[in-house]
Order: sequence, then C-alpha cells, then structure tokens
Amino acid sequence: MIARAGSVEDLLERAAAGDRRAAGRLLTRVERGGGDAERIAEAAWVRAGGAHVVGVTGPPGAGKSTLVADLVAALAAGGARPAVLAVDPSSAITGGAILGDRVRMAAVDASVFVRSMATRGHTGGLALAVPGAVRVLDAAGYCPVLVETVGAGQLEVDVSAAADTTVVVTAPGLGDAVQANKAGLFEVADVFAVNKSDLDGADHARRDLELMVDLSHVTGYGDPNWRPPVLTVSAASGAGIDEVGEAVAAHRRHLASSGSGVERRRRRARFEIASKLRRRFDRAVAECLDSEAAGATVAAVAAGEMSPAAATRLIASELLAGASAGSSPAGGR
Amino acid sequence: MIARAGSVEDLLERAAAGDRRAAGRLLTRVERGGGDAERIAEAAWVRAGGAHVVGVTGPPGAGKSTLVADLVAALAAGGARPAVLAVDPSSAITGGAILGDRVRMAAVDASVFVRSMATRGHTGGLALAVPGAVRVLDAAGYCPVLVETVGAGQLEVDVSAAADTTVVVTAPGLGDAVQANKAGLFEVADVFAVNKSDLDGADHARRDLELMVDLSHVTGYGDPNWRPPVLTVSAASGAGIDEVGEAVAAHRRHLASSGSGVERRRRRARFEIASKLRRRFDRAVAECLDSEAAGATVAAVAAGEMSPAAATRLIASELLAGASAGSSPAGGR
Repeated sequence: MIARAGSVEDLLERAAAGDRRAAGRLLTRVERGGGDAERIAEAAWVRAGGAHVVGVTGPPGAGKSTLVADLVAALAAGGARPAVLAVDPSSAITGGAILGDRVRMAAVDASVFVRSMATRGHTGGLALAVPGAVRVLDAAGYCPVLVETVGAGQLEVDVSAAADTTVVVTAPGLGDAVQANKAGLFEVADVFAVNKSDLDGADHARRDLELMVDLSHVTGYGDPNWRPPVLTVSAASGAGIDEVGEAVAAHRRHLASSGSGVERRRRRARFEIASKLRRRFDRAVAECLDSEAAGATVAAVAAGEMSPAAATRLIASELLAGASAGSSPAGGR
Repeated sequence: MIARAGSVEDLLERAAAGDRRAAGRLLTRVERGGGDAERIAEAAWVRAGGAHVVGVTGPPGAGKSTLVADLVAALAAGGARPAVLAVDPSSAITGGAILGDRVRMAAVDASVFVRSMATRGHTGGLALAVPGAVRVLDAAGYCPVLVETVGAGQLEVDVSAAADTTVVVTAPGLGDAVQANKAGLFEVADVFAVNKSDLDGADHARRDLELMVDLSHVTGYGDPNWRPPVLTVSAASGAGIDEVGEAVAAHRRHLASSGSGVERRRRRARFEIASKLRRRFDRAVAECLDSEAAGATVAAVAAGEMSPAAATRLIASELLAGASAGSSPAGGR
C-alpha cells in the first residue's frame, strides 16, 4: 500500500525510515490534542512494536538532562536508536513552557531523536499526550523511548505509570532519601542514580537510598522480585553511565522473564484508559458548567444560596441527561 | 435548639464557642472523606459566614511557615481569630505526610487554630478536603482562614482556586521571577512577599517581580483593577509582616467593593463543584475498571490486541449504562 503524500500513514512511514522531521510533525499534532491526535495515536498503535519506555525523573537540579544526554549517547554508540521526550512543567494558566537547558540535548547525536513537550495546561493533559507521543516514536522504530520529566510531584507519578522502567535521579544535597519519599518518587523507582558522585555526600545519599530500598522490601512495597539498584554516576564525566544503561536493560529482561512485565503493561493500559475517560468527562463537565442553567447554579453557590453538594447533585443529573441524549457515551461529544 | 451531645451540630456549636478540640474532631472527619465528610461540610455550610480565605504558597525554602506564624500572631494581636490549614504534600502511593517544622506553629498563640492536613493520595483529594475544612473553620468563627501549601505545582494552583486572596512567598536565590512563573505561581498571586529581605539579592528579586507584574498588566492577565503589591519581609525579625497583613486586608476590601469579589466566589464555587463531580466520576471509573469485564478489556490493551481508544469507548458505554441503571447520576453510587 502506498500512502498518500502528507497523510498520517505517509508521515509514519517516513518517520520509520528515519525522517526525523516527519516524526516531529506527528508529535506536534499529538501534542495539540483532539481528534487529530487520537487518529495519529491510533494509526501509530497499529505499527507500534512494544518499545521499552523508560521514565527518568527526580528533583530539579539533580542533573537529569545531562544524565539523559550521556545515556542516549551510550545507547546510540551501542547500536540502539533511542528517543527522548523531555516533558516540561509549564504554567497551569498560560500554558507556556520554558525549555531552558535541554536545547543542548538536540546536539547529542544525529541518530537520537529529542523532543520537548509542554504539559499543556495540567498534568491530565500530559497524561494524555505522552502515551500518544510514545506510540508515535515506537511506531517510528525508536527504542528505548526515554521520557524525562522536570520537577517532582503528581506529574512524575503519572509519567512513571506510563513507563516500563523508571529511573529516579538524585544528587547529594538536594534529594535526600526522605525528600524523594515525600515527593512520591521512591515508590516508582526501578533504578536509582545518584548523580554528581564527585560531590561530598554522594556516598551518604547512596547509603540512605540503599537503606530505604531494604526497608521497602521489608514492608513489602514494590516488585518482590526486583531490588532497585542504587548506582552512583557522574553525568559530567560520564562515569557510571554504562552501569545505568545496563541496569535499565536488566530491568527490561526482568519484566520480560517474570510476571511483572504483564502486570506493568496492564497498569499502563489501565492508566491510559482512565486518563482518556477523565478527559472525556472533564470536557463534558466544562461544557455543562458553561451552560446558562449551570451558570445560575454556580452563581447560587457563590451567593451562599445553594450548598456545593446540592449544586453538584443537580449538575450531575444534567450531565447524565446530556450524555444519554448525546451521540457518544459518558459525556464525550 | 439544643444539639445532641457529640452530634455534628453539637461539635459545630462547641467549635464556634472556641472549643478547639471540637473543631479538630470535625476536621479529622472531613479529612477522612466520604459521606460523613459531606454531611459535616453541609452542616458547616449552613453556619458559614464568608470568612476571608487566604492561600499562602511559594517554593520550598521560602520560609512560608515562619511568615504564616508571624502573620497570624499579628492578626491575633489585632483582635482577629485566625486559623491556619497547613497542607502537606505526601507520597502519592503511601499517603503518608511529613509534618516537619510546622509543629512549632501550634505554639504561636492560644487564640490561633492551626492544623496540618495531608493531601490524601492525590491533589484531587486535597481539592475536595480543603473547601470542607475551610467551611468548618468558617462556621467556627475563624477569620481569616489561611491555607498554607508546601511545594509548588498543581496543588498550589488548586488551592488558590479555593482562596479569596493568594499570597505568593519567595526568597532570594530560590524563587526568581522566571521560576515562579514556571510553577504557575505568578498568575495566582494577589500579593507577593519576598521573604529573607536581609539576604543578598532580595532587592533584585523584588524588582524582577515588579517587572513581571508590569508585564502581566500590559498583557492583560489577571484582575485589571488590582496590581499585586510586591513586599519585602523578614519573617525571622518580623519586619514587613504588618504590611503583608495590610495588603491582604486591602485585597479583601477590593474584592468587596468591585465586581472581582463576585467573580472570585463564582470561580471558587465552580472549582468546588467540578472537584466534587470529578471525585464521583473517578470513583465510578475505578469501580468499573475493577470489574471482570473491564479487566479483560485492560488485558487486551496490555497485550496489544485492542487499542486504548477502542477500549476507552467500550468502557465509557459500560460506565454510562451503569450510571443510568444506578440510583444516583453521573456514576456516583
């Protein structure tokens, strides 16, 4: 079958043949969202071959970008065709993204695909766009696909829910074990990388993490058959980078050879479906709240004339009536 | 009417009479969520008198807790009865909270009510619990109610959507204007407080923020009739704290005398209703995804046999059918 020039199929074929501009155009459309993004994700799904998706996260200042740059360079040198999605936190209201220092990533290697994505409004938007973007890169033959997130919080947990393997990067002095735990990073780590190993305190940070890994095994959290290794690296000098790459590959083999891989894929599928359902719902709620009837209800609550709980019940019935009458279910129209 | 001892009405009456243990018991139940939390929030709503809700947010390390402690001490000295809800980010998975240094807040003043709240799993949980907790404190006669959040991100934006006035606290060296903007804090600020004014760079930080406030007025963002003041404070010495209190009071007067107050209350109502709807929906989705039929669908997606989009359509129809058959609409059962 010869795809029409410029069609999604044509762009996917060109991307698979190594045309990075074609991949970039598809990602732009996925990022934009809506029906077009869904059609592209669907077409990419047909071609996707199950690339290994690696989340890289950790507190700001841990040197994630440098580590990712080193890691993809090492992977590319070993014959792989890695891609990087660098996810930027952005203003919840303006939707702007500050790309900062990750522009230099693009210079790493011509065989590496690097792309920044903004979070488009809220973490829910990201949760939607990332799986679609990963699928496009997978369909284009990139493997592994690294998803790097900036900052810490719900975003990271969401991204790890969309990854096969999650690398948590910390550095001495900013991300001690307690803080990593606080940010929810501890539970999602399959591999720990203590960056800036030349700094004072690196060994201390490593020992703290080892201790917490031991504790989590005692308390039964996580995969009982995988103990997250704690590695020290220096992304600046490149020391320890190969070990991180090996740990990621070992975790992939573990997923393939144990029941954990199936479990992980199910969790990803469940998370993606829940995100999509939520988007449909949020859209229906926003539409409903913008209606005249709901506007009067909101104003009544604001004026203290109706309780929020009563207003919620009222609007929920309107929503359901609208969804039943509409052409597509659960409010998605 | 005399309320039965130990009933919600009785606890609310005692809280209004200054019994801090009664208020604490109500807040524990609100934090726990569920139907009991809703009944309490509803009973408190009847009694609530429109306390001024002040969000205090900013990057970690800006000294928010110290500033809040000083501010409530100053408010209490001026005859007010302030309350503080200190919202802790917590692990998304374990649900634990590290209260850290805010225990000392409790010692500030016997007339001040201070309470820490965990985020209970995810920011959505917080978005639900905070308005209920604020309403209990309002019903108990506390005013203003300060909601202090730790960290930066979606959580802060959510909290500001539940506040009348938002104070963004920064400090030299960690929260420059660009970073505040990146975290979405800039757009939500009604008052800026540059803390640690004795440190180098405080004046620089203040000027940067002033510049960005000017720019935001040019670009038309925010309330056209309110220019967020940028104040320098030293929470350690108490210098500038009264000015922050005055700016908060001035913003309250502005809200009362302009259309902005009505607008803000509507935004709060809308946000609260949307949060409640989303909770109902999330519960229905989780229930549905745990069903046997949905489990098979999720497994098919995980195995690459069904696309996530097709699975979403399938589960959405099951959800809608369940909601229509159930006793309460929009999936809330």
